[in-house]
Order: sequence, then C-alpha cells, then structure tokens
Amino acid sequence: MKRIIGRVFLVGAGPGAPDLLTLRAAEVLKRAEVVFHDALVHPEVLALASRAEKIAVGKRCGRFATAQQFINKRLVDAAGKYQVVVRLKGGDPMLFGRAQEEIAALQAAGVPCEVVPGVTSGLAAAAEAHASLTQRGVARSVAFVTPRVAAGEAPSEWVKSVAAADTAVIYMGVGHAQAISAALIAAGLPRDLPVLVAENASLPESRRIALTLEELPEIARYGVSGPAVILLGRAFAAALSASARDALQRYAHA
Amino acid sequence: MKRIIGRVFLVGAGPGAPDLLTLRAAEVLKRAEVVFHDALVHPEVLALASRAEKIAVGKRCGRFATAQQFINKRLVDAAGKYQVVVRLKGGDPMLFGRAQEEIAALQAAGVPCEVVPGVTSGLAAAAEAHASLTQRGVARSVAFVTPRVAAGEAPSEWVKSVAAADTAVIYMGVGHAQAISAALIAAGLPRDLPVLVAENASLPESRRIALTLEELPEIARYGVSGPAVILLGRAFAAALSASARDALQRYAHA
Repeated sequence: MKRIIGRVFLVGAGPGAPDLLTLRAAEVLKRAEVVFHDALVHPEVLALASRAEKIAVGKRCGRFATAQQFINKRLVDAAGKYQVVVRLKGGDPMLFGRAQEEIAALQAAGVPCEVVPGVTSGLAAAAEAHASLTQRGVARSVAFVTPRVAAGEAPSEWVKSVAAADTAVIYMGVGHAQAISAALIAAGLPRDLPVLVAENASLPESRRIALTLEELPEIARYGVSGPAVILLGRAFAAALSASARDALQRYAHA
Repeated sequence: MKRIIGRVFLVGAGPGAPDLLTLRAAEVLKRAEVVFHDALVHPEVLALASRAEKIAVGKRCGRFATAQQFINKRLVDAAGKYQVVVRLKGGDPMLFGRAQEEIAALQAAGVPCEVVPGVTSGLAAAAEAHASLTQRGVARSVAFVTPRVAAGEAPSEWVKSVAAADTAVIYMGVGHAQAISAALIAAGLPRDLPVLVAENASLPESRRIALTLEELPEIARYGVSGPAVILLGRAFAAALSASARDALQRYAHA
C-alpha cells in the first residue's frame, strides 16, 4: 500500500457566481496544492487556488471528459504526493455529483476525506427568480431529480417523484424537454403547470424563461447552452403571469 | 407612500457553521446597517455585521417569536431608514423559510429586494455523513419535505413525496418521529429503511444517529435539542452497517 500523506477535500463550487462559494471552500482552495475540477467551474474560483496545479477532469452534460475510475485513481495518487488535494465540483458535491464513488475509492485506499457542501443551482435559480420553492399554502415538498440515466443504471423513477411533490427542480433536463413534458403530462400533471427554465443561474448572463408544462418543448428555440435547471410547480405561477412572462421573454431574446 | 431609500437582502446564513456562509453573504453583512435575524444564527455570523443593529425576529421550531406580518412591516420600515437592510435566515431562504411572504410585502411597498442563496442543512448533513443524496445506481431523486402544517394551511402531501423519492430529507421532523415512522410505514416504505438523524450539522457539537424507519421513534431517547434533519433512504445503508452504527451510537452517547 502506498504511503498517504494528504487529505482530499470534495468541495462544492456553488452554482456559478464566484462569490456564492462558501468561506470554507475559499479557505480550502487557498491551501490547495492540486485541484481536480469540473469543466464549468468559474475561472475566478480556480484563481483562489493560487498555489495549486489545476487539472480539469470535469464532465459536462454527461459526457465524461475523464472516466470516473481514472479520476478516482488520480485523487488517491495525489494524496500520496500532496497534503491538500481538492476535488472541486459544481453546485453541491452530494447532489448529482459522483461523490460517492470518489469517497469509496478514497476510503478503500485509506485516504482521509472531507466534504465541503455548496449552494446548489436549484436554490440559486429560486433566489434569482424571487420564487420560494416552498411557498406557504402552495408548496411544502420539493423534489430534486434528474431524468438522465447512465448506461447500466436502474431506471429512474423521476417521473413519480416529480408528480408526487409540490415543486420540482430538474437537473440536466433541458436537452430532454420534449420527453419530460410528455412524461409528466402522461403522469397526470396539468398542461398549464408553470415552468421556469433558469440558465446560468447566479451569473451575469443568467436568464429565465417562463413556460407552461405543455410549452416546455419550445425551450429548444431559445438556444439554451449554459447549465440550466427546470423549476416546475404552482410556486412559479407569478412568473407565468402575462406581464411577468412578457418581461422575461423579452429579456430572454435580448 | 413612504420614501424608500434602501434595499432588503434576504440572506441565507447556511446550516450553522460560520464558515459555511457564502462570500456574498459575508460581504452583504459587512455593509448591513440593520440585520433582522432568525434565532439560530451563529454569533460569529452576526459579528460580521459589525456596523449593524441586530434584531432577533426568528422563529425556532415553529414557535413564532415575532409574528410574520410584524416582521414584514419592520423590513419595509427599515428600508425607509437604512440603505442596506438584511433579513438573515437559517439555511437557504427559499427552502422552508417564509421568504415569499416577505418578498411580497417588500414588492407591495416598492422596496427593492435581493435574495442570497445559502447551503441548506440537508446538504451539510449529507456532507458530514459522507453520504451522497444521489448515490449512483441507488438514488436519482431527493425529496425535501417538512411534515409541519401551520394552522389554516392546506394539508401537506409530504408522505406521498417521501414515498415517491429515492432519498428524503425531512426538515423540522424530529419532534414528530413517531407519526413520521407510522405514516411512512403505512405508505409502504420498508420498516428497515435506513434513517440518519443529523443534529447540529456542520457545528462542532454535530452528531448523527443511525436507525431504521421502524426504530425512528426511539430518537426521543437521544435528547435531540438542536436543529436536526432526518435523512432517509437506501443511500444511507452504509451508515446502518453494524460497525458504523456502533461507532455512531457511541458518539451519540458520548
């Protein structure tokens, strides 16, 4: 067994804006000797790791730039060479990352590990939209789901989860808008259910597009190319009001 | 109409540990002239607002120290006197806070408002437990719910949401452990489903107690008095393994 001299920090980089990083994450980055980071981490966040070698291992929209097992191995190897190793992930590490596989590999190799939570993009999108996910009298439950299913994985029951919750936040779903709309309408959700697509939440180039569930496939016309979440539920009704929608749509096309 | 000179920032204080505040929240607090804060915000977080008058308006475990309408009015009044007004809320403002009512009151009074998202305690608890909420092959959906229903509110369908999701995070539920266990077992969830109760997540006095869903009512014996979340699902199976559970339980009793 290799000698281990370091510790690996799985750090949430937050939703995008560099100042939505936590103080702890910023502190760990300053001490980092090497940072393995996702593709979409903001350059200003990486710049905080001024002493560190930065290695992009990230995946973007499910296309693995680097295979997960190879990332795991590199993290373990790094803990044999450096004292402070950072694995920097978009959003929060414990929500739709592959943290568990990395933690398991580190544990198996006897590498100490810490997880620094972060602001997930669904919450940043709600903040920016001024729309609570759990508006009193309207919503008391929120489902965070992703409709993506990797090869070899058990089929996800994401439709059931969304249908049962008052509010839903769908990650990595914009490319599947047509399938999502059809599946949720088939599951009995109302065609006029308010939907907000939030692209680049928290960044200057952020935009939100208000649609109904039935209209969701039209999102293809908006050229969404940044990271996006789909917010869905009666809590977003205000965003779908005629005036608000008009303003949003104008903004989206600007 | 009153003259408005200020702006109100609804700021997430994060799960408890002062260094899990975001950089943006810290910056806004430094500029604050007045801070209206929840009861459970850490003193070191409040200390960042060195120029500000601090006013506790918080609610703790559903007992409203200050009625919501009175908080709304004080926020609007403060925007007539100060330029930077902060409403500091535990966790994230858009998840189980009363943000929407405050935003609506501010909008009605013509007060500009910004929401600064935060790390919610469910994510901090998962980080500390080294247990991803969406472990690959085990969980692809997470429900955030609260079983609390305020008087006059529509009955919550939290049971359905939890039953439909792979993983659930239950806020403000520890005082209702018996009812939660009974309702979820009646809804068809397995009696041996792994449950982690995380108290004071992210703080030095943090502890986690591993139980099965059937054993959840036993939590009453542990004297949980700090803020706590209940994590529930197969993703927490490792925490329920004999050795892990033994270690956790010893820690809980220490």
